[in-house]
Amino acid sequence: MKAVGSARNGQGSGPASQQDMRRRNLSVVLGAVAGNAPPARPLSRADVAGRVGLTRAAVSSLVDELIGRGALTEAETAPDGRVGRPGRALAVSDQGPAGLGLEVGVSHLGACVADLRGEPRVWRRVERTNSGRPPAQVLAEVAELAAEAETEARALGLHVEGRVLAVPGVVPNGPAGRVERAPNLGWCALDVAAHWPDPGTVPEPENEANLGALAEYWNAERAAATFVHVSVDAGIGAALVIDGRLFRGARGFAGELGHVPVHPAGLPCACGARGCLEQYAGQAAVLREAGLAQHGPAVPGAAEADDPAALLAERAAAGHAPTLAALDRAGRALGLALTSAVDLIDPDALVLGGTYAELAEWLLPSVRAELADRVTVRPWAPEALRPSVLGRRGPVLGAAQTTVRRIMADPTLLPVL
Amino acid sequence: MKAVGSARNGQGSGPASQQDMRRRNLSVVLGAVAGNAPPARPLSRADVAGRVGLTRAAVSSLVDELIGRGALTEAETAPDGRVGRPGRALAVSDQGPAGLGLEVGVSHLGACVADLRGEPRVWRRVERTNSGRPPAQVLAEVAELAAEAETEARALGLHVEGRVLAVPGVVPNGPAGRVERAPNLGWCALDVAAHWPDPGTVPEPENEANLGALAEYWNAERAAATFVHVSVDAGIGAALVIDGRLFRGARGFAGELGHVPVHPAGLPCACGARGCLEQYAGQAAVLREAGLAQHGPAVPGAAEADDPAALLAERAAAGHAPTLAALDRAGRALGLALTSAVDLIDPDALVLGGTYAELAEWLLPSVRAELADRVTVRPWAPEALRPSVLGRRGPVLGAAQTTVRRIMADPTLLPVL
Repeated sequence: MKAVGSARNGQGSGPASQQDMRRRNLSVVLGAVAGNAPPARPLSRADVAGRVGLTRAAVSSLVDELIGRGALTEAETAPDGRVGRPGRALAVSDQGPAGLGLEVGVSHLGACVADLRGEPRVWRRVERTNSGRPPAQVLAEVAELAAEAETEARALGLHVEGRVLAVPGVVPNGPAGRVERAPNLGWCALDVAAHWPDPGTVPEPENEANLGALAEYWNAERAAATFVHVSVDAGIGAALVIDGRLFRGARGFAGELGHVPVHPAGLPCACGARGCLEQYAGQAAVLREAGLAQHGPAVPGAAEADDPAALLAERAAAGHAPTLAALDRAGRALGLALTSAVDLIDPDALVLGGTYAELAEWLLPSVRAELADRVTVRPWAPEALRPSVLGRRGPVLGAAQTTVRRIMADPTLLPVL
Repeated sequence: MKAVGSARNGQGSGPASQQDMRRRNLSVVLGAVAGNAPPARPLSRADVAGRVGLTRAAVSSLVDELIGRGALTEAETAPDGRVGRPGRALAVSDQGPAGLGLEVGVSHLGACVADLRGEPRVWRRVERTNSGRPPAQVLAEVAELAAEAETEARALGLHVEGRVLAVPGVVPNGPAGRVERAPNLGWCALDVAAHWPDPGTVPEPENEANLGALAEYWNAERAAATFVHVSVDAGIGAALVIDGRLFRGARGFAGELGHVPVHPAGLPCACGARGCLEQYAGQAAVLREAGLAQHGPAVPGAAEADDPAALLAERAAAGHAPTLAALDRAGRALGLALTSAVDLIDPDALVLGGTYAELAEWLLPSVRAELADRVTVRPWAPEALRPSVLGRRGPVLGAAQTTVRRIMADPTLLPVL
């Protein structure tokens, strides 16, 4: 038998150092200021010391460093209108470090710059069919959009400290910078850096469902800490947020909800298995069932082809019976797959994101009914399933905020100005 | 929009202190000594300093404290046979702090004391039908077994620092000390302390599948860091270990594999749903399919009734065709439910534990075949599913080692002698 205390005790690998302690305390102080957003009265150094439980002297030294790194500003005017010390107002800088988020969708490109408060300050979105085009061409166009967004950000006083690219595909835990497979784009084993025009601005790819889930967690007013976020674009993906952190799985493949078997002997799936959720609740399946398959993503050029969710919403709102039946069937299948997710993971909530958030009105009743019938061994409230607050904007916003969150957790990532 | 940096940034809630740093460094030093189990040459203080990257003086102070708390011993004889300093050999104490694990099974009670090296030093197991008896009576008997085990441990120089009780039921994340539901015992909303004879020795209840999974992680020679551990006793449970830590779910209900729907319109389940895995792969279902239902747990008194897995193994080994067919069918259903687990969680491995580890020879081929057919969107090797190394012994050993692991992570939990 192996010695129990030998390894992997989850306490971090090395000893704790003074640097670790300072890094953490910089994060705690920055977090205290960030957490005190308007309309609350701004905090002074003394206020921060009182809140975080460090001495005034320690906080002052930390605040000086955070100002030096461009993360905090200290206003000349005191909160109550008086000028000068004591009580000068601290704020997270809205003209300093920022994160750039980029997105390649099946039919669009996107960019977003978020400042250190997490606020999106630059948004770009262009409709463009990316499916089946050479990856180098698509990435060159994203790089161009990125450069425009950075120029616009610089004019606002922001400097981009990190770049993340949302892709509708699997991004493994390693090697870094690689997209393993993005079937709806036609990408396979793609190294982003190899196709990016400027080696100084290569973005880090991440799965769009993962970024959408994180954005939901970071931005929703009352986000659960542990939830499953379902994204439907051309495929069905899910992301697991556990205690506020993204769970990527041992290899980065977690959340393959689209291939959970819902009808074991059911329809064959392109993946090689049978009865996968995607065959019942994916966009193509729903369009087919609704008798709208000719408008599906397989027909480029048609106006509706670019936006199946908008088409389905339009028909459902108009009371089109086959569409309503197709959405009901999709909701039942989704409820069946999500029953497994609830039974296995015990989340606080389920969030329906991506374009299907726009179909929530018609999908939610049947998903909830299925969950109510099947999740019986634990309490499960129907409201624990809700539509995303961000919908389509989630992934690119999450991509931009990823850099912001990293800086918040470790402000020493920022250069000293 | 909420400020992104406002809360829940996963960096711990408060600032880091000197005490936190010392606590962590005590753990690092203790871990270094524990990780150097025989036959490796024992470590001196200087060796430890070299390994963990702290100064000799810092390590000496930490070692002194660990000796003072009874966690380490320092032998008079040097590793190479010379006597006295420098180079006195450090070892984790095998006569100091210990953890007591207890277990209430459907048909047995168990106890185990593990020393700080994690070694089990005391084992007790008594066969006893606990199902349907008054909980107070069962717990009084466990308390008696616990007292015997503690007496035996004391004679070995060990003092029990923590007590954990494995139960075949759901233990919610809170309130502490409560068993929400243990259907196969007939327990419901049970407060362990309320029925425990001695207020000074009340154990903390934990789900037996969770403890079995942790024991597997702590004791298997090559355990994966992220895996799903399936336990079958009277019911089917699973536990998720993620990066070496148990994932309990938002409420403590994670791992309800037994109620994952495998045949949506299938057999009704006692839980109120249909087509749950338990109806196809649970002990009762397999006994029924094998034509051995009269020997099932529902008939107390019959010799085999207490041990359905042993009965099934005996019949399968003898080539009993209905038993082999029933195990094949159970394996298929298990493979179907585990496909959902693999798709959602992306584990490194699946471990078949509990009494079904003894049926691995007959179950594994069909489980693996089903996974091979269905897990198609990521690489999945059949060997990633393997039987547990601990089987039935897992939960009580995990219960005992839980206290050991807590001490290893924070040696200041130990009183100064």
